[in-house]
Amino acid sequence: MKQILVIGIGAGDPDYVTIQAVKALNRVDVFFVLDKGEVKQDLVDVRQEILDRHVDRAYRVVEARDPERDRSTPAYAEAVHDWRRRRADVCEELIRAELADGQTGAFLVWGDPALYDSTLAIVEDILARGGVEFDYEVIPGITSVQALVAKHRTSLNRVGRPVQVTTGRRLAEGFPDGVDDVVVMLDAHNSFTGVADQDVDIYWGAYVGTPDELLVSGPVHEVAERIVATRAEARERKGWIMDTYLLRRRR
Amino acid sequence: MKQILVIGIGAGDPDYVTIQAVKALNRVDVFFVLDKGEVKQDLVDVRQEILDRHVDRAYRVVEARDPERDRSTPAYAEAVHDWRRRRADVCEELIRAELADGQTGAFLVWGDPALYDSTLAIVEDILARGGVEFDYEVIPGITSVQALVAKHRTSLNRVGRPVQVTTGRRLAEGFPDGVDDVVVMLDAHNSFTGVADQDVDIYWGAYVGTPDELLVSGPVHEVAERIVATRAEARERKGWIMDTYLLRRRR
Repeated sequence: MKQILVIGIGAGDPDYVTIQAVKALNRVDVFFVLDKGEVKQDLVDVRQEILDRHVDRAYRVVEARDPERDRSTPAYAEAVHDWRRRRADVCEELIRAELADGQTGAFLVWGDPALYDSTLAIVEDILARGGVEFDYEVIPGITSVQALVAKHRTSLNRVGRPVQVTTGRRLAEGFPDGVDDVVVMLDAHNSFTGVADQDVDIYWGAYVGTPDELLVSGPVHEVAERIVATRAEARERKGWIMDTYLLRRRR
Repeated sequence: MKQILVIGIGAGDPDYVTIQAVKALNRVDVFFVLDKGEVKQDLVDVRQEILDRHVDRAYRVVEARDPERDRSTPAYAEAVHDWRRRRADVCEELIRAELADGQTGAFLVWGDPALYDSTLAIVEDILARGGVEFDYEVIPGITSVQALVAKHRTSLNRVGRPVQVTTGRRLAEGFPDGVDDVVVMLDAHNSFTGVADQDVDIYWGAYVGTPDELLVSGPVHEVAERIVATRAEARERKGWIMDTYLLRRRR
């Protein structure tokens, strides 16, 4: 039987890796790497640093080109599902061709495989197709959300209250019902500016845990412009941005 | 200046500890431990195992009795705030009396200090009182939520959809608005049975990451009784239970 490990390697700081992940990395014969066309060299470097620092055995790295997602269509979920199908094609072929029976392959995931990542769905897709057999395990990792609030030294929730994790796309439709604490991921459009008329604090961070880390917090109406400018400048300078924020409605 | 570290040590499995936490543990002169009257010996043992395995320097452990929380009052938030005030009294005295200037003290937190834990609020309380000065840092850790979904090999969210983390107390008031994926913590009353009439799947786990780990999943209406029985039996056998679950509404 082939073994697949889906390993969360944390969000940015190589020290976010857990002991469990280090042990898992040392079971791996082949690391499968899907890189985007515009490779984020900083992230590739951190990933390589994690392997260099923690893996004490011989391994192979097999790279494949990550299929492009159609970002032009308004049908977001459909575009993601289509993208996942094509990623599953690529990954199935990697597992079939590059991994022998009895060997262990791994996909490394930034943050935690359970939060806004498609690897688990792709692995399940491949198994459901029945073209290649394997067993798999999931290793959790520190998410960008946890890194963010740790650096801001604040909690995700308040006493006995819920917290919701959502997307920029959804926040743009309004502050969610029934919660006062909302974490926003995947926001390419500064959707927090849409709640600047409300009594809401924001805890924002980009590249958290890395040398480029940026943190801004305060009432949204006071700091929104500063975040928009900081974001634009950082994105321009580095060519990419990874940011997250917590919105906290005052009570 | 005194230094305080609030260190998330993960949820159950000592291997959930991050490299960052291991480095932080090795900066500590004094570990502050607040134990409940009925000490959960398994947890004390895991905590000691983490220190034994990862700390290469001399340290002291200072224990204090955790104040009791009033569990009889229906005013939940007020009871928690009152409990926090009394915990803050105890912790302030520990930092004042047991830590010298230039030394580093630490509070170890199960899971992540940002999720349903009071340590950060207590530290902020103590600083706000102004009776003792210190700087502090927060180290994130793997939560029981992440451990749970990793073992069930499922995601927290679905494509482009939100996920809410809430309490058993709140779930008892109904399935939250605007979300189909809900993580429930601190549920002492099997509140999931209240959604057994809905088309909802549950991913439940207790003592996740430990040798006593229990996992059950399936449609709530099919597995609710089994979870209730498993919970009661485990709680009876071990004297305590730590469990969490994800509810996923079918679409």
